[in-house]
Amino acid sequence: MSNQSYNVAIVGATGAVGQKIMQLLENDPFPIHEIKALSSNRSAGKTLTFKNQEIVVEEAMPESFTNIDIAFFSAGGAVSQTLAPEAVKRGAIVIDNTSAYRMNEDVPLIVPEVNGNDIANHQGIIANPNCSTIQMVVALKPILQSFGLRRIVVSTYQSVSGAGLDAVQELEIQTKQYINDEEMTASVLPVGKDKNHYPIAFNALPQIDVFENNGYTAEEMKMINETKKIMNTPNLPIAATCIRLPIVTSHSESIYIEVEQNDVTVPDIWEALEQAEGITVQDNPETQTYPTPLDASGQEDVFVGRVRQDLDFAKGFHLWIVSDNLLKGAALNTVQIAETMVKKGFI
Amino acid sequence: MSNQSYNVAIVGATGAVGQKIMQLLENDPFPIHEIKALSSNRSAGKTLTFKNQEIVVEEAMPESFTNIDIAFFSAGGAVSQTLAPEAVKRGAIVIDNTSAYRMNEDVPLIVPEVNGNDIANHQGIIANPNCSTIQMVVALKPILQSFGLRRIVVSTYQSVSGAGLDAVQELEIQTKQYINDEEMTASVLPVGKDKNHYPIAFNALPQIDVFENNGYTAEEMKMINETKKIMNTPNLPIAATCIRLPIVTSHSESIYIEVEQNDVTVPDIWEALEQAEGITVQDNPETQTYPTPLDASGQEDVFVGRVRQDLDFAKGFHLWIVSDNLLKGAALNTVQIAETMVKKGFI
Repeated sequence: MSNQSYNVAIVGATGAVGQKIMQLLENDPFPIHEIKALSSNRSAGKTLTFKNQEIVVEEAMPESFTNIDIAFFSAGGAVSQTLAPEAVKRGAIVIDNTSAYRMNEDVPLIVPEVNGNDIANHQGIIANPNCSTIQMVVALKPILQSFGLRRIVVSTYQSVSGAGLDAVQELEIQTKQYINDEEMTASVLPVGKDKNHYPIAFNALPQIDVFENNGYTAEEMKMINETKKIMNTPNLPIAATCIRLPIVTSHSESIYIEVEQNDVTVPDIWEALEQAEGITVQDNPETQTYPTPLDASGQEDVFVGRVRQDLDFAKGFHLWIVSDNLLKGAALNTVQIAETMVKKGFI
Repeated sequence: MSNQSYNVAIVGATGAVGQKIMQLLENDPFPIHEIKALSSNRSAGKTLTFKNQEIVVEEAMPESFTNIDIAFFSAGGAVSQTLAPEAVKRGAIVIDNTSAYRMNEDVPLIVPEVNGNDIANHQGIIANPNCSTIQMVVALKPILQSFGLRRIVVSTYQSVSGAGLDAVQELEIQTKQYINDEEMTASVLPVGKDKNHYPIAFNALPQIDVFENNGYTAEEMKMINETKKIMNTPNLPIAATCIRLPIVTSHSESIYIEVEQNDVTVPDIWEALEQAEGITVQDNPETQTYPTPLDASGQEDVFVGRVRQDLDFAKGFHLWIVSDNLLKGAALNTVQIAETMVKKGFI
């Protein structure tokens, strides 16, 4: 690790993920010299606190990135499209938390435990994957490494915070409406920018993000394509069905996998998971021990339980994977990318 | 159809499913001569209304079944174990809504649209399948018939009403506690009779019914074994992961199937589903049309949407199946069994 310290900018500093990133940076994951909070014109002038010091939020402009070493972008794809190249031009390394650059060939898509060394290939921009992808690859990489993988089928159970603060408020309002026997009003979910909106309280919506032409949603295609890129398994068959649920925080995933090796057992899989970084195994039917979104919320790890061998296919296994979508699924992974970059001397 | 009319008894008449059965019988699915409401000693003496007439609930005893033609049992497995044979001994045909006899070789397990003719093999008792099984086989039978099936992988999204009225109340109480920032108290879910209880509000519990020795829950094994029996496909590979969610009514299922035939398309599957009884296809990404548990509640059909061909396996398809677990999943199917029995002259 170098002894240098770094000038950091956070674009979208007043947003939910931007705020979490600032909180995590207070724990000194790497030496910070100066920190700059950037936002849209609308939030400029607000004050935020970092390590007990007040910081005035500035409007993000190309010139904002002069002398910045690391710029965290978390203000939507359009802002990243416009300003990330400006930041790179001025010598900053961008860690982008939007989907703008994830599938670009010259942009590494990083989950540090899984493919941290790919950071070396960056050309100024490093992308942070989608929340539902991150927790899946953290859990499946050790299995891929130990036993090989020949297919993945995932059904998700996703919380509303993945759709932003508006969606969290919508769930709260609808819940109160339902309890008071009032009609539920919907204007955010399933997708703010899509035509129709449906209640999420006491419901399940089989749409996350907009539909693509092949009948899959953009969220489902993100899980499929990002997973292949991160694990460097372009030919691995992956299928995803993504469902939004009335849960505030943490995503869960019911995953079916087939391994390559013969004679793999459930204890073999537990062992591979337990030896990996960032995973906690919670799996004991006798004590009814398994991960739940309420328990995982506020925790940094990816939690795995309900590991079962398929009853018909010896190479088939079922897992239940839960993680906080705002932490490992977003802010924490972003900060860990910067931390890894510094630790491994990639900056 | 015969012109006879029938004497009917309802065991568990004061319970949630018993009440729904009585409501459905008011619509004259078959000619009823007399109706008898039976219950435990505790509820005996209460009065219920059937077709605007008051009926006094009687305690269920062996003698209660003298002169009864059809007895609906919906008062738990123990009551069925004790009293169903007594009813049969006295000449009644029992339609049992508990899991007591479902896997008995000489008890037909019936979903009328799927295997109605198996009623002919009954020896006094006919079993009604588990709710999560019924909606799956209704949707998959037409696909099996048209294209063959070589595997099923299902992840469920199940409502609390499947665990009874206590569980519905628990969700309501916890929801209010959460909204009021109070600690949530749990004493019913995931399983009333199991050791530990966890909050369901704003959560997901990967346990429905108790765990079996193989690490699967009893609910998961019911889905696997009952499906094979109903569809008469003992060697069809089926895997299930069952999850309880903060939804009041209607179960949803994310299902992956592989068909036997080559060159099957999504429109082929829509067509097979649309021509089948008891199914409504709701599937149009352009208009964001898909089934949800809120929309399905109170409806009699099984709703199918999000039909997609797998991106890697031409014979693989994904479906999203939703149905009211108290109607088609319980009371309605039970009444339809009796209706089919009468229509087909099996009584």
